[in-house]
Amino acid sequence: MKYYAYENFRDDTKALIKQIDEFNPQAVVGIARGGLTLAHCIAEGIGLREVQTLRTELYDDTKKRECISVFNMCDFEKDIKRILVVDDIADSGDTLDAVMKDLKAKNLEIEFKSATLFYKKTSIYKPDFWINEATEWIEFFWEKDFLK
Amino acid sequence: MKYYAYENFRDDTKALIKQIDEFNPQAVVGIARGGLTLAHCIAEGIGLREVQTLRTELYDDTKKRECISVFNMCDFEKDIKRILVVDDIADSGDTLDAVMKDLKAKNLEIEFKSATLFYKKTSIYKPDFWINEATEWIEFFWEKDFLK
Repeated sequence: MKYYAYENFRDDTKALIKQIDEFNPQAVVGIARGGLTLAHCIAEGIGLREVQTLRTELYDDTKKRECISVFNMCDFEKDIKRILVVDDIADSGDTLDAVMKDLKAKNLEIEFKSATLFYKKTSIYKPDFWINEATEWIEFFWEKDFLK
Repeated sequence: MKYYAYENFRDDTKALIKQIDEFNPQAVVGIARGGLTLAHCIAEGIGLREVQTLRTELYDDTKKRECISVFNMCDFEKDIKRILVVDDIADSGDTLDAVMKDLKAKNLEIEFKSATLFYKKTSIYKPDFWINEATEWIEFFWEKDFLK
């Protein structure tokens, strides 16, 4: 298990912001909970007031597979054409895969790209922008620093 | 102007979590953008999966006063009775005042309390939980650390 401190996050997020510069997003969507701090800091870094969040839930369907529901509470202004979706890590990739499919299906005229701090090579979904390959379990500072 | 570093945020957020322990919230709502990182870290600290966000917009009405629209995209599960609303600072207090009134009016059976890191004594709204009195302009780490 690797502890991922704020200083690591700060440096990686700045590197991620450089990568996404070419995409020039007009809004940021963070996937709760893991993507919230990253969404906030990217939006501040690139000067976007428009930050929204969504959350997902795992459930077992009748065939006993795990499925993901996306609670998409996002409502985008009509002039927004490029949106960045962020999460902390593409691990299995299930969440990002479900979220990106859902957002694209519901907003056909918007271009969505994704960004994560970590990407595991076995993920079924590869983010458009990512910084580190995850080779062990990552303990993010927000998961550790605020426990009693 | 006072720079508010991650280490200050970490210590204050832990103190805030101790204060809100008595309220025992079942969900956290963060006000975008300033309240997003705080909402994330409080939710992680107290083990709440349920984090939602909302955003507000200032506009001029016909009488040239500034008004605040609340974009409340929150949908709460029926068994949720206590919700913590968080923002970085109660400065003028306009945002928190508008948000708390809006949430309470739309969710009569839910108890809402508010928490901020900073509170200015001239604010029209006093949060239920707060840590520091703001006596000068605060520059939060998320506003500074990610700029180019």
